[in-house]
Amino acid sequence: MTTVVDAPSVVGESTPQDVCRVVAAAAAAAPAVVAATPAERAAWLCAIADAVVAHADSLAALAHEETGLGLPRLDGEVLRCANQLRFYADVCIEGSWLGATIDHATATTPDLRRIQASVGPVAVFGASNFPFGFGTLGNDTGSAIAAGSPVVVKGHPAHPRTHAALMDIAHDALADIGAPEGLLSAVTGLAAGEQLVLAPEIAAVAFTGSEAGGLALHRLAATRPIPIPVYAEMGTVNAVVLTTAAVHRLADLAQGALASFTMGMGQFCTKPGLILAPAGCGFAARLGAELHDGPPTGVLLTVGIHEAFGHGVQNLLTNGAFAVARSDASTPIGPSVWVLEADASLIHRESPLLRECFGPVVLVVEYADAHQRDDLIAALPGALVASVMTGGSADDEVADLVKHLAPKVGRVAVDAWPTGVATLWAQQHGGPWPATTDPRATSVGAAALARFTRPVAYQGTPQAALPVPLQDKNAWRIVRRVNGRLRVPREPKVAQCAVP
Amino acid sequence: MTTVVDAPSVVGESTPQDVCRVVAAAAAAAPAVVAATPAERAAWLCAIADAVVAHADSLAALAHEETGLGLPRLDGEVLRCANQLRFYADVCIEGSWLGATIDHATATTPDLRRIQASVGPVAVFGASNFPFGFGTLGNDTGSAIAAGSPVVVKGHPAHPRTHAALMDIAHDALADIGAPEGLLSAVTGLAAGEQLVLAPEIAAVAFTGSEAGGLALHRLAATRPIPIPVYAEMGTVNAVVLTTAAVHRLADLAQGALASFTMGMGQFCTKPGLILAPAGCGFAARLGAELHDGPPTGVLLTVGIHEAFGHGVQNLLTNGAFAVARSDASTPIGPSVWVLEADASLIHRESPLLRECFGPVVLVVEYADAHQRDDLIAALPGALVASVMTGGSADDEVADLVKHLAPKVGRVAVDAWPTGVATLWAQQHGGPWPATTDPRATSVGAAALARFTRPVAYQGTPQAALPVPLQDKNAWRIVRRVNGRLRVPREPKVAQCAVP
Repeated sequence: MTTVVDAPSVVGESTPQDVCRVVAAAAAAAPAVVAATPAERAAWLCAIADAVVAHADSLAALAHEETGLGLPRLDGEVLRCANQLRFYADVCIEGSWLGATIDHATATTPDLRRIQASVGPVAVFGASNFPFGFGTLGNDTGSAIAAGSPVVVKGHPAHPRTHAALMDIAHDALADIGAPEGLLSAVTGLAAGEQLVLAPEIAAVAFTGSEAGGLALHRLAATRPIPIPVYAEMGTVNAVVLTTAAVHRLADLAQGALASFTMGMGQFCTKPGLILAPAGCGFAARLGAELHDGPPTGVLLTVGIHEAFGHGVQNLLTNGAFAVARSDASTPIGPSVWVLEADASLIHRESPLLRECFGPVVLVVEYADAHQRDDLIAALPGALVASVMTGGSADDEVADLVKHLAPKVGRVAVDAWPTGVATLWAQQHGGPWPATTDPRATSVGAAALARFTRPVAYQGTPQAALPVPLQDKNAWRIVRRVNGRLRVPREPKVAQCAVP
Repeated sequence: MTTVVDAPSVVGESTPQDVCRVVAAAAAAAPAVVAATPAERAAWLCAIADAVVAHADSLAALAHEETGLGLPRLDGEVLRCANQLRFYADVCIEGSWLGATIDHATATTPDLRRIQASVGPVAVFGASNFPFGFGTLGNDTGSAIAAGSPVVVKGHPAHPRTHAALMDIAHDALADIGAPEGLLSAVTGLAAGEQLVLAPEIAAVAFTGSEAGGLALHRLAATRPIPIPVYAEMGTVNAVVLTTAAVHRLADLAQGALASFTMGMGQFCTKPGLILAPAGCGFAARLGAELHDGPPTGVLLTVGIHEAFGHGVQNLLTNGAFAVARSDASTPIGPSVWVLEADASLIHRESPLLRECFGPVVLVVEYADAHQRDDLIAALPGALVASVMTGGSADDEVADLVKHLAPKVGRVAVDAWPTGVATLWAQQHGGPWPATTDPRATSVGAAALARFTRPVAYQGTPQAALPVPLQDKNAWRIVRRVNGRLRVPREPKVAQCAVP
């Protein structure tokens, strides 16, 4: 049993004055946040993580009230959020993200030292579909604080009370540990979000959500006198390719596919939207039967998403896809789950069948041979992730398929469904346009910190005038490159977090 | 005595068909370039470097004919160009730029591996002011080839024959060593450059030049259906701050300032444009006397630059700056060298005195006290570099000044003039907007390769389907991160270049 949160029942929209105040506080906090040691920043993140775990049950219950995402998943997501914060604490302390590089003076070159400096306050736009993983806390906020940026969160209207409860919990934890005021704050409402993107003090924007929303922020930020980066992870059609040899395990694959494309009622940015299967294997029918046997039930996050889902399915149907199976809507506001199929001839670069449909629908397309399979892959727009389902370790189609898929995505998964993004050193969550406004960036994994930094070099600079990570004595005991050679400390520091 | 180049006397503009052919060849070469080992790419770069050195004298002479930049400087720049290519060969082989990261599977997480993948063909726009350092060969081309990108160069019209001679030399060297056809090619003319930026096969653009030119390319690239990054290093007003204690060595500083702001007749992107000096020290007069004693002579690169310089000086004079000293124009087409001064009250965020004036002019502004000095710094736009000139190692103003300047620039230099950018691991050449369209990037130094890569993660992928740098055996012997810990090979490989 964890502590019960004091959930506010009404959450008002921020006024322009609110936004100004919050942004000014974030800017005022920036010097202290940058000056804090990695160990201090890690302690802030761990304090929030501990507080989230302490309130896990009631946070999940509150989010379930607001989203209908289901308690098993929300229970897991609360703990994952805490683990994300701890992960970024570890990454912060390890220090590679600082890119500390020292070239000593030679007869012909000066003493030169380079570091990734914090850019300043960051605006984080919460996601509708991950109340804990992306948004108020979670990946964006965690990586930004680790990288030395104060964070202003624009909460998502799909779960305002969960957002407010998380902010309260985090504020209390940060106050207890003596973190700078203004390190983490929030605004509410569309207008407040826009004001945030235009605020001169804000140095970068992180967003997870729809293509329309992401592009709007991207365009808005471009109108600033001094543009700032917008890291928007948007809609995407993630493809799964079944190899010829994979047809020997169609039953398993149908079960896995159904679970993956209906996870969170299809409201994952990594949802498999398109399945390419060998001709004649009847995968769509198999999937339809699976749906018939155990139709998932649930509701969509908002009325707007419910409407958009209806339009999206209609778009697919009027453009040549046909329904292989459809579940009954579980409630008046719950959506049907759809299995669609379309002929390969309908898939081309401009095909309306390649528009993301956010919700529980998947489109199956059969390919006649390897040549057609590769043509279909070539037609795909940039996406976050693609999966290859194989016939086993001896499947000789895999290497070629992976090579064809990699240029289209940020992540290729083999024998794993695309949903599920572990927060790891090697993670990449961000793919070629239009999946992400900046495919060089990731919102999950150790490299997420890089989004909130900018390199600065110091030439011939006295020790006392250098940032701590570039001073000779390496007080933070971080990884550094000296005269071209990486120097890894013998005993790496690790964050002092409570055990999850 | 080096080999004489066979310099073409006429260089025609590329037709649209030429551009299509060249871009298609670059795209066709991309798979072979990506598949090449770092040692192979390094060998290509070293082969070009060796050929450039072999033709050094006549290349410099040809460039001098076209640019009037002076033989001593051009002789040096040819050799620096070769050394840059060798540096990127070393960086390529060391392999940190690949960001190879391996997380082995655990009970709860999958096997996940991440790499910086080459993005594909890159368009490089040559600079007017560095016929060898930036453009045809040099930093952009060298770092792009190292990162696995074929390069299409748009030569600068200020030195078309030098450009053509360099391309011929490089082509021969690459053909001799068996590099892929299409690895390096060129187009000529404004329309060809625009076509290049819009070509679907081009994945990134590197540009060094004027703000107008850089922004035009930036905007053009944004109109593509799939936007690509434009790394444009543009005009900038680089500030030099003299501390109170520095007034004890004004004679030295005046000499150094004159040499720096007139280097290459003021046509360096790192030219000091603004000097902040303590009130009453009379630095402008000192600089004027220095100019009077030894006025530098030379011509500007193009008629257009000559005209723009005249307008730029006029803009400064009509907006409150006054001329302290002015040299006589050395030739009918040579510019006067100007020392201007202005009152601190005229410097503010929108001040027309803070617009870059490309050419041999510097503006001196005196500050009354530390408070006014910091206000002046706060008013500065983003720049590539700033310098602090101190009174010696005990000067206690330095640390504070460096801290104020760092957020404004990509590089802070102490007791060094801003001109002069060594190609090193720790270099950063790129600063906050408007100095650079992407301040996270650099066109000089080891990090220059990052501009031409994009991360891709591989989940649960069999060894044979992984890119070589992510396979367990680490055939390239590069730096990798395994389960969060950096692994540096005991004996790093180094490029096998001829000794410079």
